[in-house]
Amino acid sequence: MNVFVIGIGLIGGSFVKDIKAKMPEAKVFGIDANPEHLEEALALGLIEYKATYEDLDKADFVFVSIPVNATVKELPKILDSVQDDCVVCDAGSTKELICKALANHPKRRNFLACHPIAGTEFSGPSAAIHGLYEGKTNIICEVEKTAFKLQERALEIFQLLGMRIRYMNPKAHDKHIAYVSHLSHISSFMLGKTVIEKEKNERDIFDMAGSGFESTVRLAKSSPAMWAPIFEQNKENVIETLNEYIQNLMDFRELLLVDDFDGIYNEMNNTNKIKSILKGIPINKK
Amino acid sequence: MNVFVIGIGLIGGSFVKDIKAKMPEAKVFGIDANPEHLEEALALGLIEYKATYEDLDKADFVFVSIPVNATVKELPKILDSVQDDCVVCDAGSTKELICKALANHPKRRNFLACHPIAGTEFSGPSAAIHGLYEGKTNIICEVEKTAFKLQERALEIFQLLGMRIRYMNPKAHDKHIAYVSHLSHISSFMLGKTVIEKEKNERDIFDMAGSGFESTVRLAKSSPAMWAPIFEQNKENVIETLNEYIQNLMDFRELLLVDDFDGIYNEMNNTNKIKSILKGIPINKK
Repeated sequence: MNVFVIGIGLIGGSFVKDIKAKMPEAKVFGIDANPEHLEEALALGLIEYKATYEDLDKADFVFVSIPVNATVKELPKILDSVQDDCVVCDAGSTKELICKALANHPKRRNFLACHPIAGTEFSGPSAAIHGLYEGKTNIICEVEKTAFKLQERALEIFQLLGMRIRYMNPKAHDKHIAYVSHLSHISSFMLGKTVIEKEKNERDIFDMAGSGFESTVRLAKSSPAMWAPIFEQNKENVIETLNEYIQNLMDFRELLLVDDFDGIYNEMNNTNKIKSILKGIPINKK
Repeated sequence: MNVFVIGIGLIGGSFVKDIKAKMPEAKVFGIDANPEHLEEALALGLIEYKATYEDLDKADFVFVSIPVNATVKELPKILDSVQDDCVVCDAGSTKELICKALANHPKRRNFLACHPIAGTEFSGPSAAIHGLYEGKTNIICEVEKTAFKLQERALEIFQLLGMRIRYMNPKAHDKHIAYVSHLSHISSFMLGKTVIEKEKNERDIFDMAGSGFESTVRLAKSSPAMWAPIFEQNKENVIETLNEYIQNLMDFRELLLVDDFDGIYNEMNNTNKIKSILKGIPINKK
């Protein structure tokens, strides 16, 4: 099988790393807009061959892991270049605009809209790791629009990598993912910003930071090139989550201002049930 | 040496666990308002003897690890009960009110105001772990008010447990810790609340959560009994950090509303330097 990965960073690199481990017979081709990343991926053994869109006619499986704005632009061209029996999957954190952009593409049946919920705060080919997708959820949208035989090929690969599959429509995906992923990134980035701003005048502040701060601010290390387009494409949903988050923070502040510490206790106590909720989440501890 | 731990949860339990490991000759006595915790600590081998305040005249070293509102109330009584050559340390996440409450106590020289920056999101005796304090910062306030010989005894123990020591005045401590600890807890609790509220109507939302959400919301598992009094004692500073955090979130929302995605890119890019800052923090990976 000829596997093409377009965009060889953390997501694409980890994907083909496991493919090579589980399917030694697969030939892995890499395409990347950044020639240095391509060289690095080759040197790291993530890919065996450098390739271009012109080589896509040899592809059996294409995994597109580039920022979501580039995905919308490139997917039509990628589909134009593949043969009729090739399946093309994306990995974008937004699904509605991507599905819309391809709705009328003559090769729509060759495309499977995916969002594997996996990642770390790092990026680039050197961030690729084994087992990133083991036990993770892969959300597939508009499955009915993909040719059945091609769905099967993709699902076999996802199964090999240990992923759980969930089916969802693109609208619901974008709405829900805003809460459990996009909002976390904003809360983390703004926490980092607030503390960095303070630190300008207070040099020693970070000496006092512990593992709690580190955990909460971890996502503020994420790639802006990946995240700015996600926020752009999911703007309406993200603004809704931000409105609710800001309101909850203002309500908490109000409890502080009126000295309602029983109220504050109750707020925290009610939220403690996140413990049992999180127990159900398959987490990749990094 | 007779070591007394008052409040045997995560913080006190982990402390005496390492003391027993490093100083096998030490006798460890436990005092706790919750008789079940005391029994559990005994069963887990965290303490060797159950004790009461009446036994404190035998103490050489007392470690007080109870919620900060209880600390303010109990510390005067604890100091009343110890001998002249006993050193009493607290572990509270606020320092100004605690130091003020003891300013005129006749045994002020027996007290060393401490804040070991260590912990996990869990609580109770069973949450106690070995090595919690290894490489962590212990902030000591008003060191000049503690008898020199007693400072030395405490510092020897802290050194044995592998802690780094920093000296700070209580006012500066409370101001800075609001940024790197107290605000993280609020941002995490309110993130948990926002998503749980949404989930009431959207049962499947947590299926979509990944390790990023888990990391950002981790502190929302923390004990309300410990944290409500911290927010109460550090109210002014916490409100200041919350004001800045909410303002940063509203500014980010404004950039979304006006479609300034270059601005959003820059916000994230500037905050990415948290990477290099965090590298300097000794983190207890749990």
